[in-house]
Amino acid sequence: MAGCGVRWQYILGAALSGALLLTAGILLGHYAIYKEPQTPEWLHSLSRDLDPALLEDFMNQVEAARIGQNLKDLSSKPHMATTKGDEELVQLILKAWRDPQTGLDSAMEGQYEVFLSFPDPEKPNSVAVVMENGSQAFISQETEKNLTADQADRDVVKPYAAYAPPGNPKGKLVYANQGKMSDYEYLVQQGIDLNGTIAITRYGGAGRADKAINGAKFGVVGVVVYTDPGDINDGKASATETYPYSWYLPPSGVERGSYNSHFGDLLTPYYPAKGFTYRIPEDQITGIPPIPTQPIGFEDAKTLICNLAGNPVAEAAWQGALGCVYHLGPGFRQDGLFPNSSEVQVNVHNYRRINTSSNVMGLIRGSVEPDRYVLYGNHRDSWVHGAIDPSSGTAVMLEISRVLGKMVKEGKLRAGCVCVFYFLWWGKFLCLSHLSATQEFYSKLQQRSVAYINVDIAVFANATLRAQGTPPAQSVIFAAVKTPAADSSLSVYENWKQHFSRNSSVYGVIPSLGSLGAGSDYASFIHYLGITSMDIAYTYDRSKTSARIYPAYHTAFDTFHYAETFIDPGFTSHQTVARTAGNVLIRLADALILPLNVSDYGETLQQMYSVAREAFQADLTHHNISLDPLWAAINRFQAAAAGLNQRIANLREEANPSPLDVRMVNDQLMLLERAFLNPRAFPEKYYYSHVIMASRSSSLATFPGLADAYDNAKEDGLWGEVHKQLTIVIQVIENAASILEPVAE
Amino acid sequence: MAGCGVRWQYILGAALSGALLLTAGILLGHYAIYKEPQTPEWLHSLSRDLDPALLEDFMNQVEAARIGQNLKDLSSKPHMATTKGDEELVQLILKAWRDPQTGLDSAMEGQYEVFLSFPDPEKPNSVAVVMENGSQAFISQETEKNLTADQADRDVVKPYAAYAPPGNPKGKLVYANQGKMSDYEYLVQQGIDLNGTIAITRYGGAGRADKAINGAKFGVVGVVVYTDPGDINDGKASATETYPYSWYLPPSGVERGSYNSHFGDLLTPYYPAKGFTYRIPEDQITGIPPIPTQPIGFEDAKTLICNLAGNPVAEAAWQGALGCVYHLGPGFRQDGLFPNSSEVQVNVHNYRRINTSSNVMGLIRGSVEPDRYVLYGNHRDSWVHGAIDPSSGTAVMLEISRVLGKMVKEGKLRAGCVCVFYFLWWGKFLCLSHLSATQEFYSKLQQRSVAYINVDIAVFANATLRAQGTPPAQSVIFAAVKTPAADSSLSVYENWKQHFSRNSSVYGVIPSLGSLGAGSDYASFIHYLGITSMDIAYTYDRSKTSARIYPAYHTAFDTFHYAETFIDPGFTSHQTVARTAGNVLIRLADALILPLNVSDYGETLQQMYSVAREAFQADLTHHNISLDPLWAAINRFQAAAAGLNQRIANLREEANPSPLDVRMVNDQLMLLERAFLNPRAFPEKYYYSHVIMASRSSSLATFPGLADAYDNAKEDGLWGEVHKQLTIVIQVIENAASILEPVAE
Repeated sequence: MAGCGVRWQYILGAALSGALLLTAGILLGHYAIYKEPQTPEWLHSLSRDLDPALLEDFMNQVEAARIGQNLKDLSSKPHMATTKGDEELVQLILKAWRDPQTGLDSAMEGQYEVFLSFPDPEKPNSVAVVMENGSQAFISQETEKNLTADQADRDVVKPYAAYAPPGNPKGKLVYANQGKMSDYEYLVQQGIDLNGTIAITRYGGAGRADKAINGAKFGVVGVVVYTDPGDINDGKASATETYPYSWYLPPSGVERGSYNSHFGDLLTPYYPAKGFTYRIPEDQITGIPPIPTQPIGFEDAKTLICNLAGNPVAEAAWQGALGCVYHLGPGFRQDGLFPNSSEVQVNVHNYRRINTSSNVMGLIRGSVEPDRYVLYGNHRDSWVHGAIDPSSGTAVMLEISRVLGKMVKEGKLRAGCVCVFYFLWWGKFLCLSHLSATQEFYSKLQQRSVAYINVDIAVFANATLRAQGTPPAQSVIFAAVKTPAADSSLSVYENWKQHFSRNSSVYGVIPSLGSLGAGSDYASFIHYLGITSMDIAYTYDRSKTSARIYPAYHTAFDTFHYAETFIDPGFTSHQTVARTAGNVLIRLADALILPLNVSDYGETLQQMYSVAREAFQADLTHHNISLDPLWAAINRFQAAAAGLNQRIANLREEANPSPLDVRMVNDQLMLLERAFLNPRAFPEKYYYSHVIMASRSSSLATFPGLADAYDNAKEDGLWGEVHKQLTIVIQVIENAASILEPVAE
Repeated sequence: MAGCGVRWQYILGAALSGALLLTAGILLGHYAIYKEPQTPEWLHSLSRDLDPALLEDFMNQVEAARIGQNLKDLSSKPHMATTKGDEELVQLILKAWRDPQTGLDSAMEGQYEVFLSFPDPEKPNSVAVVMENGSQAFISQETEKNLTADQADRDVVKPYAAYAPPGNPKGKLVYANQGKMSDYEYLVQQGIDLNGTIAITRYGGAGRADKAINGAKFGVVGVVVYTDPGDINDGKASATETYPYSWYLPPSGVERGSYNSHFGDLLTPYYPAKGFTYRIPEDQITGIPPIPTQPIGFEDAKTLICNLAGNPVAEAAWQGALGCVYHLGPGFRQDGLFPNSSEVQVNVHNYRRINTSSNVMGLIRGSVEPDRYVLYGNHRDSWVHGAIDPSSGTAVMLEISRVLGKMVKEGKLRAGCVCVFYFLWWGKFLCLSHLSATQEFYSKLQQRSVAYINVDIAVFANATLRAQGTPPAQSVIFAAVKTPAADSSLSVYENWKQHFSRNSSVYGVIPSLGSLGAGSDYASFIHYLGITSMDIAYTYDRSKTSARIYPAYHTAFDTFHYAETFIDPGFTSHQTVARTAGNVLIRLADALILPLNVSDYGETLQQMYSVAREAFQADLTHHNISLDPLWAAINRFQAAAAGLNQRIANLREEANPSPLDVRMVNDQLMLLERAFLNPRAFPEKYYYSHVIMASRSSSLATFPGLADAYDNAKEDGLWGEVHKQLTIVIQVIENAASILEPVAE
């Protein structure tokens, strides 16, 4: 942002690094020679660009060992939201951010009262096989086996499906694959009456809550969810092949999770979850399981699935790695472990309550443009110890804030030019509290935020960078990773390109920036507020594993020992993520002109258009709906972006550009993303306002509202809705183009 | 806005006024002495304030006679939207704005395709009395009597209710007062069966369309609307007491109008009405008459109402000035003009169609902050000649733009600092096209607009200024009118205070700034985009008339002759409005710090709170809903506004404030109004997003959503909705307060 580098000369303290001192000396000489009393003090601070020495200083100071120590401290105890372990982390973080040597300018708490769901500690949930005489032939394990002592911690929450209602339904068991609508439909097509059945489903394919929401529509009365070793363990299923002998999930591991389709506090949609806030009646909550639901480990799942009756067997795509042929049910086979008349009972004793807890926010005040914010966030709460999810991200955040805080305290860095806000919410439940914050301060964040950087799980695996973001984030991330990595001669950029690449029509082969879904704390920033957002992590070599996610995810095995032994020994990948995210942060905070290339949106829009044209054009023409105005809008957008880039290039050549001219183009770059919002585009999807990036049911990578309306129209013939969604897309692209065009036209 | 005055020194041409030359000379001397090559060119242009000499120059150049001539040109022919007369005005205005000596920097057209309603020129609409044998005993006049030749113009559109459906319903006549729900309920309470009746209603009390929408709910099959001389003519009803002998409406005058409860194009809610736009099916349009409806003059209304049967007579509040006692019906009295068995038939032949027409936009480019816009607008189309509505406003706009354009061409004025956009829509139909423009460029306008100035009907009467606006507009309007008026020693301010005053808890007795409804072209700027808006006009001495509006409103008597003879002889009130609006415009465009006092919102919020507390507290307490958090939010807002004002005062004392510091506070002032928006607050009210200023059904001057929810809860017991609306108000005030608080907190 406008002119930060030179600002240092006014605030340089005693403890300078050599490189920075040299730079400052040159600058003082350059400007001081003709100094005269009429020149205001601010003059030279407003037109200088990012200082490369400052970036280098930051990169050098990021230490892998400190991140490892952070991770150990953060994951030493289970810290589920609003529990004692979680509250202790609030204090740990506030202490770090208030440290006299390495703290931030300020750190504070913001309290919210949100609706949570817990299992009853007195009455463990279970999945049981009940024989005709009422006695139990089988009951699922209460929790994970104690393999490394960590699992014996009495604060380990027993497996449950958060927000699933209590109850004890009983019925014949069916295997329903991933619990998608199409899966249940397939069972019905096989002649299976789903009424009164219990469905066992594997994780993946559909959202956690959807497995039960879909099932209930077919008369299913209870749902069991398990993790198939085929999906998470590259097929490994025995105790000796899994943790602590490898990174794979042990047979007793159970993935907990929030079973909800929406994000945000369930009782206060669109409002901050404060004391004064209106709460909807519980019976109006949508998007959660309507029937009891319980997750189990694959050891228990094997006992259930491998004894199922049913003919024919499940089709190939439904087969997993439990070591038997999967049948569909209903009920158990004659020659199996259980009498054929046995039923499965799902026993859920969850309760719901409103608890109070805090966001923690830290701030480095901006020196030149304090009304421009760079945001950086993660959640702090976990399901159990949460070493990877989310403490790996928190450990990285604390190291970045330590180095920047130290540079500020030493007078090397006055926060860059703009404010840097760190947020550390507690968010495992539905991105709860980050959303409450965006609802509480929505205009402030929306009017002033340059970008939001998210580092949730920092390291899934130590093979390669994986970044997601909206198109303008690509340029700043690429700039940040084109320096060599800490542990290899290959730059992070080149390594990333080797693992994930795409052929860009503009740049040729480049690393592939992923799209943001709604799976982490960036969700409300991009979808609700329209702030350019990105998510940065290290991840797998996909040639070596097909695991859906790192195998200990949301289980009692996600511990520091697991992280240091199998995920990132030496914490060098954590270090790379910290360097990358911090580098991006400094660039966004200190560059004279924001390093967001809006032209890259043009490429994305064009790709989406090509997909839409290919897939929809014939039907649309048949219904007198033309894609030409969409193409015209995209052309206008691309021309506007190119024009802005040219004006930026001209501005860069000016020796002393006017700070208001610089601010003007920065505002265009910053506020472009807002122009893609339409809060009325998807009234049935809570918080999704970003017309280009919203979620979609369609599998086509194109405009989400258009694609979903098209799919619906193919079913119900409502082509007017397709035209309406097309209109919304055209309107928003024309609107966005007008933001990039010269302002006085 | 930031630093404009000094900018002149770089662009001063040869033709300077003495006062401005002097100012510029001082400035050049002040800054030039220590001039050195390192000082960038822009330095001195960024920190200077509004030049009073420039304001004075503008005020002196505004000429009453030119406004009179503009008005004559603009109203020489009927110019209903999309007719030939209207298209000619487009060219007239473009010519003025492209004039080499007095034009603007650019002028352009923007085309839209909107849904209009017209009467069939071949088949005149009518209201007839039909006897049992089918023959007509009476038929209403086709149009106004030709009293001054203007009415004989063949382009005078015959009276009709735009958007009322065609049809020929027939039934017993009832008199339904103003057609409010309570009016129809009263008739039912009197034992009158409304099924199959025709209701005659007078203008006022309910929206035009509501008279028919309400009536249809009771079984009414057709509606007649007339203007009661008691409401518009201070009771004068004879031909010799009315125009052309006075300003009062002649007996044959008929108020035309758009019969619609929403604003905006009916087929494209929330989208710009372009060629590519999805249009809703006509049968999904809401807010228009569901039954044939026709307006008539009071001469014809007298014939109908004064012959009504019914006992008892209508209550006192229902009586008007037709010169007889009003009975309720149903049907005609035995001893009257018509056989008792006669019925009234409403014959409507309106048709609807989509027509293309243009907005005209003019622009003076900003020199220092071209990405900040001051907007000024009006519609240009009328129902007939429209001398007062809207040509009085357009005549004022053309004079303001002529003077400013001239000053720009002469190099005296480089548009102030920010862009000035003039809009001249065609909007008699539902504020149609201004809304399309705000829908087309919503982000651009929302991100960059300082304020919107509306001058629609410039002069209702020549007694006093009347201004409406959101609270921050008060300070700039007051500043503009504290100079003596053109035609009296009394300042416009003092005169205004004598006519409309209030006792402010902050300022004592001051002129009363009215609230903005949705009755003119500001509607989408304030309600949809949250841009600080104001409406400026001259109006009545309320001690001398109780006319609902100037009597010739929307009739064929609203002509140049009427305007110059009865409304504003000499056009001095027009001149005062032009000076006031232009003065406000220059202040908004040129002041270093925006002259919008956001503290004044605090006073308004406190007033609204007091009203709510007084009226609702007891019931709310009974339902466990507390107003305390609302009071706390208002206190926070007031403290934040006071703090910002203090920081502004400090900034003003700095000799050379940083342009980015100035921009920061200006952005806070400018964007405050946006923070009151919640697009999800009133999902059933198209375009109303401004939580504080939205329309309300309640008669209480307090938070509209809260007041309406309270009224509903008293009926239906849904107190949760009251708590929800209270939450929305608290959220938005807290959000607004956070905009005014120091940015780095």
